[in-house]
Amino acid sequence: MDFKVLFQPEGIESSGLPGLTVMELARRANIGITAFCGGRGTCGKCQVKVEPAPAANELEKKQITPERLKEGYRLACQTKITDCNLTVFIPPESRFFNLKILVSGLTRDIKIHTSIRKYYLQLEPPTIEDQRPDWERMKSAVATASGFKEDELTISIYLLRRLPTVLRTGDFKITAVLEGKRLISIEPGDTAGQSFGLAFDLGTTTIVGSLLDISTARERAVASRLNPQSAYGADVISRINHTITEKNGSETLQQAVVGTFNEIITEVCQKSEVSPENIYEIMLVGNTAMEHLFLRLPAAALATSPYVGVYQGSISLPAKKLGLAVNHDAILRVGPLISGFVGGDTVAGILATNQHNERALRLFVDIGTNGEIVIGNREGIWCTSAAAGPAFEGANIHFGMRAEPGAIDKIKITDRVLCGTIAEKPPRGICGTGLVEAVSELLRCGIIGADGRLKSKEDLPGLPKEIRERLEEEKGERRFVLAPETGIALFQKDIRQLQLAKAAIAAGIQILLAKIPISLAELDEILLAGAFGSYIDPEAALRLGLLPLVPLEKIRFVGNTALTGSKMMLLSQDIKDEAENIPLICRYVELFHEKEFMDLFVDNLSFPSPNLP
Amino acid sequence: MDFKVLFQPEGIESSGLPGLTVMELARRANIGITAFCGGRGTCGKCQVKVEPAPAANELEKKQITPERLKEGYRLACQTKITDCNLTVFIPPESRFFNLKILVSGLTRDIKIHTSIRKYYLQLEPPTIEDQRPDWERMKSAVATASGFKEDELTISIYLLRRLPTVLRTGDFKITAVLEGKRLISIEPGDTAGQSFGLAFDLGTTTIVGSLLDISTARERAVASRLNPQSAYGADVISRINHTITEKNGSETLQQAVVGTFNEIITEVCQKSEVSPENIYEIMLVGNTAMEHLFLRLPAAALATSPYVGVYQGSISLPAKKLGLAVNHDAILRVGPLISGFVGGDTVAGILATNQHNERALRLFVDIGTNGEIVIGNREGIWCTSAAAGPAFEGANIHFGMRAEPGAIDKIKITDRVLCGTIAEKPPRGICGTGLVEAVSELLRCGIIGADGRLKSKEDLPGLPKEIRERLEEEKGERRFVLAPETGIALFQKDIRQLQLAKAAIAAGIQILLAKIPISLAELDEILLAGAFGSYIDPEAALRLGLLPLVPLEKIRFVGNTALTGSKMMLLSQDIKDEAENIPLICRYVELFHEKEFMDLFVDNLSFPSPNLP
Repeated sequence: MDFKVLFQPEGIESSGLPGLTVMELARRANIGITAFCGGRGTCGKCQVKVEPAPAANELEKKQITPERLKEGYRLACQTKITDCNLTVFIPPESRFFNLKILVSGLTRDIKIHTSIRKYYLQLEPPTIEDQRPDWERMKSAVATASGFKEDELTISIYLLRRLPTVLRTGDFKITAVLEGKRLISIEPGDTAGQSFGLAFDLGTTTIVGSLLDISTARERAVASRLNPQSAYGADVISRINHTITEKNGSETLQQAVVGTFNEIITEVCQKSEVSPENIYEIMLVGNTAMEHLFLRLPAAALATSPYVGVYQGSISLPAKKLGLAVNHDAILRVGPLISGFVGGDTVAGILATNQHNERALRLFVDIGTNGEIVIGNREGIWCTSAAAGPAFEGANIHFGMRAEPGAIDKIKITDRVLCGTIAEKPPRGICGTGLVEAVSELLRCGIIGADGRLKSKEDLPGLPKEIRERLEEEKGERRFVLAPETGIALFQKDIRQLQLAKAAIAAGIQILLAKIPISLAELDEILLAGAFGSYIDPEAALRLGLLPLVPLEKIRFVGNTALTGSKMMLLSQDIKDEAENIPLICRYVELFHEKEFMDLFVDNLSFPSPNLP
Repeated sequence: MDFKVLFQPEGIESSGLPGLTVMELARRANIGITAFCGGRGTCGKCQVKVEPAPAANELEKKQITPERLKEGYRLACQTKITDCNLTVFIPPESRFFNLKILVSGLTRDIKIHTSIRKYYLQLEPPTIEDQRPDWERMKSAVATASGFKEDELTISIYLLRRLPTVLRTGDFKITAVLEGKRLISIEPGDTAGQSFGLAFDLGTTTIVGSLLDISTARERAVASRLNPQSAYGADVISRINHTITEKNGSETLQQAVVGTFNEIITEVCQKSEVSPENIYEIMLVGNTAMEHLFLRLPAAALATSPYVGVYQGSISLPAKKLGLAVNHDAILRVGPLISGFVGGDTVAGILATNQHNERALRLFVDIGTNGEIVIGNREGIWCTSAAAGPAFEGANIHFGMRAEPGAIDKIKITDRVLCGTIAEKPPRGICGTGLVEAVSELLRCGIIGADGRLKSKEDLPGLPKEIRERLEEEKGERRFVLAPETGIALFQKDIRQLQLAKAAIAAGIQILLAKIPISLAELDEILLAGAFGSYIDPEAALRLGLLPLVPLEKIRFVGNTALTGSKMMLLSQDIKDEAENIPLICRYVELFHEKEFMDLFVDNLSFPSPNLP
């Protein structure tokens, strides 16, 4: 005869003959229970609360604490159906889902479980015989549904004030939302299917937000905006200075970003028809300065030696404290940092690429105003940040511009000069990728020498006339015209800017390679992250000496790993825990403190060789 | 040769010969370590962290968890000095002090330990070799000083924002304040000696606050004020109605009380020269409605059947959420409740009198607008609340007034009528105690009959003329003049009010006595609490039949047990835990739900006998 097992909190029933284990019935019902040992009772990971609890066997007595045994916890793989129906509560730590995070071919299986749980509850209304206060009534129902003990459950004064009204509006049928053992929302009726979270990448230039269903891990919508703090300075140092020199400067910068966050929240909620009230968790990563400014933490010490921030481990706080327009008791988590110049975005990048867990020795480079460089594998990780300046973002360049429509981003020199623009609009300027390609092509054709100097027409008698005529000289400064109809040209000083930027990054990479130490041949892969990294021509990067000379097939684009890592942290407690550990395993190198750095920097100002091997 | 033991967090050194235990050295240094078993290693209460940790013996392996053993925890009574100096961290749960709480002769020894700890720290300033962020630097110093693990320590975003400035203002010499494992304040310099807490009794009529040094348990100052909510109704039901009928009524009532709390805080701080910044914890008890109104929780359901409140267990929240002018991160604890009409003040009363732990069978009565009645001992506790109405507080009485200067509070009838007033001011009216004494004396002299009726002059020919002339009659209502020069008199309807009030309480007491059930002779003591209870003449109370007829020596005044209990909860985690348990062991009786109540109430309207046995 079949007996039933009711799995909670899902409320899913499964049935089977005596002799079958709870684990087997859970599999039939498609409910994931963790079992590293494959069900042999040796890993202790499949603890579930069983009612009525059968006698514990020896394996269970070994794996489960006496206290939990007393509460009815057993191993799902050892508990067999015998002669009655069972109710089985699966605690969050025993649950799993699997998610493939795709990063340009890299995948990572992660166990998805957030600390958010929703329970639909039908309470008995109070009577003169049952005068329990509202919160005690609620607590006992939540305890029954969740398997937590009543006296472990907590509630904020805000919710406590709303509780009587919500209970009575919902006719004592309500949905409770728990973050761990903390009640964070009470909603009239059954809203158990609506659980959302947001993952943010807070970049110096761009802010991207992703709305995820945290029970299914499905992405529901994405939106992005320029970082409005750009109005107070393109780079982080000018923004930090703004907080020092201007009254209420910190508040201004913070509120600008909070406003943009709220715009993104509105957009993703509208796109997906999700109520912001049902967003219970927000994960955010950014570089160290961006995170400090967002939290309105004093950032002055980040701008001067010894470059000390306020915190390193992740920060959790109520989202409402910063004015984010989500559920009142939603939690905001801001990712951990490695150092004053290697931030949460790099931690997210390491998580997304799994660099710290794999055997492959990888070089990870995220190029922006600062180039974050990470080298290592599961044996150890070294990292640094090289002050590249804004050249790669098109700033401080004569005709420089952001990577927007009309920006020249592709250059090919054959018998003519071919220029491509973003969105194929008429050329308006040169973006970072265009700058790299232009210099690379001019190097390849010998128009720029290894020292970075533009040659004169006279030096290059063999070039086709069409190309030679593009070399111009005015007041002693040479330039190479890219778009004759508009006059857009690459100036000698632009090349100097690029030399400074790439020398900083290249020297940083060399310093780190020497720390392990490994030879170039031992490097298994180079991972290029970030918007710039995704568009750059790897051949050009090699020709400039921006990246060390490895076979082209070892270079891989991994996209916005900051956002990918942020999503992973949002969805998984395990990944959150891993993230916390990354700053502890990463050895940070302060480049200006390295004796060899200035020498290497100067060496790298020149270009390695006009032709690749 | 002597070796040294450094006790932390005190920083006190003690030294002795090999063979002595850590416990013995602690005693020499006058440091209290808990040891219920007297140092035989069997209670496990004297766990301390020892550096370097010696090998654990069998007793220690039995009493200490493997995790704590690994961290270096040992039993102070088992750890012997051998061949090196030791550092010993005493965690809060192993500390004790003793406090005698005096309640009119009752004493209770309580182990004093709050969750507040202060540590003076001298940090190393950051350098280029040591770029740890401010919070990580702080955390590691706090962990060393407190014995907590770094990753258990938490901090609020508010403090995190102040941290860089405070560290640098204090030249990296600062005092950290912990509430449990949560950093709640950082102060430049050494302020470790300044730790204060406030205990409040939030009465319907009066608010009393006491400022205590929470490390020594010394009371530094007390202040009291009338409850300003009286302007919105003398009784709790009118105040609850105000929150229902008036827009922002809840806010108005709350803010009135918060304002008064802040006045009391200012007064006790000025009296004692303590900075409100050094107040880190506030404990408050009040009746169920007062606590709800203070927390701005919906109280409407308290006013109508089935009289359901919002919470029962104690509530903790940041004091700043209610606008209390103390340290920004101070914690406010609001005492647990028993029912809709038996509140935190009664829980405090039970704690103060230790009724729930002792063998003696006691009747505890706190008489106010509601009379809270508690009967029982360590075997079990029954309680109820009787709606006495405001007569005992001087309201609804023709010449009634509060117990303020000029109120008649003593009456003796011999061959004349002798009246005493509070502060010996000229008589202005009659307070509750005066009412009770007047009726009692008139009963004794036969001027009032057992049915409560004032007799006429004609009925009392034997009375001295001086007394007889005080009996007046106007429009059919009789009165007895107490102060002829002012005309202050006791009216027949005043006696009726008193009859209603005392009948409610007497019937409540009888219902509870029948619950256990016990005979009157088995009752060991009657404890009278509250302002009214402290001033009442016990003989008068017996003559009126307010209290059951016991020998006079069994009646004891215990003063403001609400405030005493509140102080005890503030000072001791053990007492806080006990308080949490009291609502669970108390059986609440809803009088209107008891079949016999109305009969008993009517029976008790008359007065038992003109003379005591």
